[in-house]
Amino acid sequence: MIAPKDDDKTIRRDQALFPKSKRVYIKGTVHPDLEVPMREIELSPTNHPNGRVEENAPVRVYDNSGPWGDANFEGNVEQGLPALRRQWIMDRGDVEEYEGREVAPADNGYLSNEHAERYNQNKEAANRLKEYPGLVRKPLRAKDHPVSQLWYARQGIITPEMEFIAIRENLGREKAFKATDDSVNGPRNVMNHQHPGQSFGAKIPEFITPEFVRDEVAAGRAIIPNNINHPESEPMIIGRNFLVKINANIGNSAVASTIDEEVEKLRWATKWGADNVMDLSTGKNIHATREWIIRNSPVPIGTVPIYQALEKVNGRVEDLTWELFRDTLIEQAEQGVDYFTIHAGVLLRYIPRTATRMTGIVSRGGSIMAKWCLSHHKESFLYTHWDEICDIMAAYDVSFSIGDGLRPGSIADANDYAQFAELKTQGELTKRAWDKGVQVMCEGPGHVPMHMIEENMKNQLDWCHEAPFYTLGPLTTDIAPGYDHITSGIGAALIGWYGCAMLCYVTPKEHLGLPNRDDVREGVITYKIAAHAADLAKGHPAAQERDPAVSKARFEFRWEDQFNLGLDPEKALAFHDETLPQDGAKTAHFCSMCGPTFCSMKISDEVRQYAEEHGMTSEEAIEEGMEKKAAEFNESGAEIYS
Amino acid sequence: MIAPKDDDKTIRRDQALFPKSKRVYIKGTVHPDLEVPMREIELSPTNHPNGRVEENAPVRVYDNSGPWGDANFEGNVEQGLPALRRQWIMDRGDVEEYEGREVAPADNGYLSNEHAERYNQNKEAANRLKEYPGLVRKPLRAKDHPVSQLWYARQGIITPEMEFIAIRENLGREKAFKATDDSVNGPRNVMNHQHPGQSFGAKIPEFITPEFVRDEVAAGRAIIPNNINHPESEPMIIGRNFLVKINANIGNSAVASTIDEEVEKLRWATKWGADNVMDLSTGKNIHATREWIIRNSPVPIGTVPIYQALEKVNGRVEDLTWELFRDTLIEQAEQGVDYFTIHAGVLLRYIPRTATRMTGIVSRGGSIMAKWCLSHHKESFLYTHWDEICDIMAAYDVSFSIGDGLRPGSIADANDYAQFAELKTQGELTKRAWDKGVQVMCEGPGHVPMHMIEENMKNQLDWCHEAPFYTLGPLTTDIAPGYDHITSGIGAALIGWYGCAMLCYVTPKEHLGLPNRDDVREGVITYKIAAHAADLAKGHPAAQERDPAVSKARFEFRWEDQFNLGLDPEKALAFHDETLPQDGAKTAHFCSMCGPTFCSMKISDEVRQYAEEHGMTSEEAIEEGMEKKAAEFNESGAEIYS
Repeated sequence: MIAPKDDDKTIRRDQALFPKSKRVYIKGTVHPDLEVPMREIELSPTNHPNGRVEENAPVRVYDNSGPWGDANFEGNVEQGLPALRRQWIMDRGDVEEYEGREVAPADNGYLSNEHAERYNQNKEAANRLKEYPGLVRKPLRAKDHPVSQLWYARQGIITPEMEFIAIRENLGREKAFKATDDSVNGPRNVMNHQHPGQSFGAKIPEFITPEFVRDEVAAGRAIIPNNINHPESEPMIIGRNFLVKINANIGNSAVASTIDEEVEKLRWATKWGADNVMDLSTGKNIHATREWIIRNSPVPIGTVPIYQALEKVNGRVEDLTWELFRDTLIEQAEQGVDYFTIHAGVLLRYIPRTATRMTGIVSRGGSIMAKWCLSHHKESFLYTHWDEICDIMAAYDVSFSIGDGLRPGSIADANDYAQFAELKTQGELTKRAWDKGVQVMCEGPGHVPMHMIEENMKNQLDWCHEAPFYTLGPLTTDIAPGYDHITSGIGAALIGWYGCAMLCYVTPKEHLGLPNRDDVREGVITYKIAAHAADLAKGHPAAQERDPAVSKARFEFRWEDQFNLGLDPEKALAFHDETLPQDGAKTAHFCSMCGPTFCSMKISDEVRQYAEEHGMTSEEAIEEGMEKKAAEFNESGAEIYS
Repeated sequence: MIAPKDDDKTIRRDQALFPKSKRVYIKGTVHPDLEVPMREIELSPTNHPNGRVEENAPVRVYDNSGPWGDANFEGNVEQGLPALRRQWIMDRGDVEEYEGREVAPADNGYLSNEHAERYNQNKEAANRLKEYPGLVRKPLRAKDHPVSQLWYARQGIITPEMEFIAIRENLGREKAFKATDDSVNGPRNVMNHQHPGQSFGAKIPEFITPEFVRDEVAAGRAIIPNNINHPESEPMIIGRNFLVKINANIGNSAVASTIDEEVEKLRWATKWGADNVMDLSTGKNIHATREWIIRNSPVPIGTVPIYQALEKVNGRVEDLTWELFRDTLIEQAEQGVDYFTIHAGVLLRYIPRTATRMTGIVSRGGSIMAKWCLSHHKESFLYTHWDEICDIMAAYDVSFSIGDGLRPGSIADANDYAQFAELKTQGELTKRAWDKGVQVMCEGPGHVPMHMIEENMKNQLDWCHEAPFYTLGPLTTDIAPGYDHITSGIGAALIGWYGCAMLCYVTPKEHLGLPNRDDVREGVITYKIAAHAADLAKGHPAAQERDPAVSKARFEFRWEDQFNLGLDPEKALAFHDETLPQDGAKTAHFCSMCGPTFCSMKISDEVRQYAEEHGMTSEEAIEEGMEKKAAEFNESGAEIYS
């Protein structure tokens, strides 16, 4: 193996933190040693026109950045993150350390060590294979029973992971946030939608308890993806009765990117809010890239193991075998991958049904398996070896993300036979995995026009027994290459509202190229918007506080608070400063849209003051004494408006 | 008046046209002299692996750019556009030319001509008042009866405007596009949504006829905003049984922008697809800016006349009078404004209900009128003079856009008492305007979480008697300043699907600053996506062709066709070229995401070829002879995959 250290790019120790934000940790109760990280945004006080100064409580937000987001953390990517969960895992006494598999040249796509050396000599330094220099632990695996959170939940155990999640999902609050009556005017006649996510099973409680987390996991309605060999990760949950989560895909390809860039994308994506990251690397150096990513990741890492298996047979699909795939699963499970996308629902008999589609099979994993099935005229080895796959995954607590290899690749193919046939098979596989104690989520489309999205959610909940759904978008139209984060953000918000548990982001580069840092940021923010819009629509109690905080800051012209409470303070500040860069404008009671004398917020604030001062907040008061008050207003208030 | 010609910025004669696109014109039938513009996108042929060459028919798309989008057009912004509709208007014989009002210094915000001169001397050249140098026609007005399209429709007349629209809405097709059975696999069990737009009144027909246009206008379900003094505009329709339209707001403010910049924004916005433009200028030079905009606009122009009225009284709200407002309406009607936003639904008794809101009143027009009402303790003069306003508008065919002055400015205030009280009043005003022969649409919010959007649409259709709804977004969350095109694009797509007829765009600068060209483009494209996603979900027949065309190009690796068929070919090309700039990559059967040997589209194409060659497109064929065929496949096909 080659580790050309002298050629490394400079590795940034940490990234810029959010302005006026600090890391806080909330202690556990069931497990008092727990420390659950949040980001706390400090707000400035409101200076009322009458001289009163009102303090504004800081706002806590969910924080995926892990130790990288803690100003006091001293680590770097060559050392990796601390093993937060290691002791919890060891304390359960049900795992053993063992020697594990030795890394082979083929794991990184080489025929031999000599091949690796030769190949890398010809590469630019930045693109070379680079072995992870930090601590490599011996792998752990289960001794006697599945070591999955599903298994513990079924035994009635509340693991530290579960309590961590309960605290996290409440954003550190001890009770649910309720909009104050002051801020709400009159009754809210919300249409009583019976969307799929609300018509099945349990409801979102006002307050998330560790017991609720456990019960949702036990029921299969939620998963906690955390491989025992990825102790660096901070527990998080994917289930429709929790905050909607988002996934960011990263990974190099044969054409572009390096290990350093991918590690930076990981940290960048989690900074902006990615709850999960999938490493979809193909080409050379897959194993090494993944090692760097996992050791530095505070969030669960997913992969599609068939990609690496295919590299090991030099891209010859027909040479894939169950044994090779199995070894790849073990290799990745030992490294600490938290969930595997496995396209076992692509059955032989479904494949020809894609031939008349507008866009055939667009899932890479799906098309690989389709090709294998046709070439061997055999049922997919992923399907025929499902139980053995489950046994491997149960031994490391790797979760399933059952792939949707036949998802539609265009609006024209949405909700067709092949797609729904596979979804039914995903349901069958879900049950079988549960029987083996393995946690399961199911992947979904893809490209679906708005009016056909709900059917996807309904069928998935129905056929897959309420296992969490994890969709890519869906894109609601195909006519905007370069803007597919938006075409799909619309679909993502909708399906999140309907009950989808995790949304796989789409970047502006979708269909056009590999995303760079800017694209990752744009994709993550777009999906945070979709997820949060869905949380509001679902009525998630913990999602209710941030919007009013932004709105209050906006109304009170606390410009910097408005920026800092947003998903991207940096961009908001930059946009504001394009027209009004002066420092004074950040405290000004106007902005560039309307200018100083033409601001509806300002006028409206005056109306409010007037109404308050004159007791005009009830209809009777208005009818009764308004004429007299109008006269006063003209006398006393005229100057306010000059 | 000052027209410092020597200081003018260079005015670009035209802007870059779309690649591989040409302007085509479709002739009328009822009115054979009609020429309806479309943009036609030329496609390259498909080269099938077996050597067959398949031609791909060009795709026609709706084109808002007017003569500016015609490569043969020789005009410039100093001359303005040709008066397309002038003859149609004169031929009806129901209008008269008259002298019209003389432009006063106050129209541009000056106390006197001397004031204007002094003021402009101190300005940078670019910011100075600049009189429109092109032809200024004498205004037209009605002689005996309303000259609105509503009035003609009620008489059973099919105007040239109506036939123009029918052709335009069908995108030049002689019958509706139907997805071929080839591209569809199995039954589409679309959930049977009974969304408000589908449970009221008429349905979208398979093919739009001039008669259908007329009937929808006569019923008040659609409007054709085209002032007889804006003959440059190309007729378009706003109604929920037609393509969803979008509006782009432009306009200077006291703090930023010049006349030239605003004219360029107009052309830029319509190039990217704005169906309407609102000139929301405030500050100085309002009249002159508007003259430049209208004379150069191929799309309807809307305004909020109270803005200019307020400038005429130096921003002192309490000094506003009915007479001043009336004169401003006439001034703008003579110039050719196509629709007026008038906030006549802000009634005195609703105003105190906003005092306890999170964000009070956020509509500028709404807050102006609220302030006026409170200060005078009188009912709004917009409400008390409604009938007179209607008479003015009927004489020029100016349409109403009845403002929503009490729309919610935050998620916390959505669907509250004040908002819905005003909406009911908008309904009352709608009826009264119809009685006067004036076309009406109603404005709507604003900030509304997803689950509360449908209620807005339902109430509007119900209370406003199916007059077209025209909403700003709505924003579905407040937590993303800098990304409000996305927070609102989600809401816009939803409400468009539910039945909203026009979506007012939101740019990334919303809440932060005045949009520049890039922001306008981003806002327009985002809203074209929302509108088109809604059209697909509504099942609009003419909306069905473009998506499959993009998807087919994508699947067949016709990269340039994929770019050119998209909403923003330039950006798609640039994104692609970031990773694969070589010319060869534009014809390559792979891309940077997966590299050459790892492409699901390629594999999938192979599966398709195989299935076709072996007759494996039916389930029986598969069950029957697959084993034998698998062997053949291995022998014959192995090289394809190497």
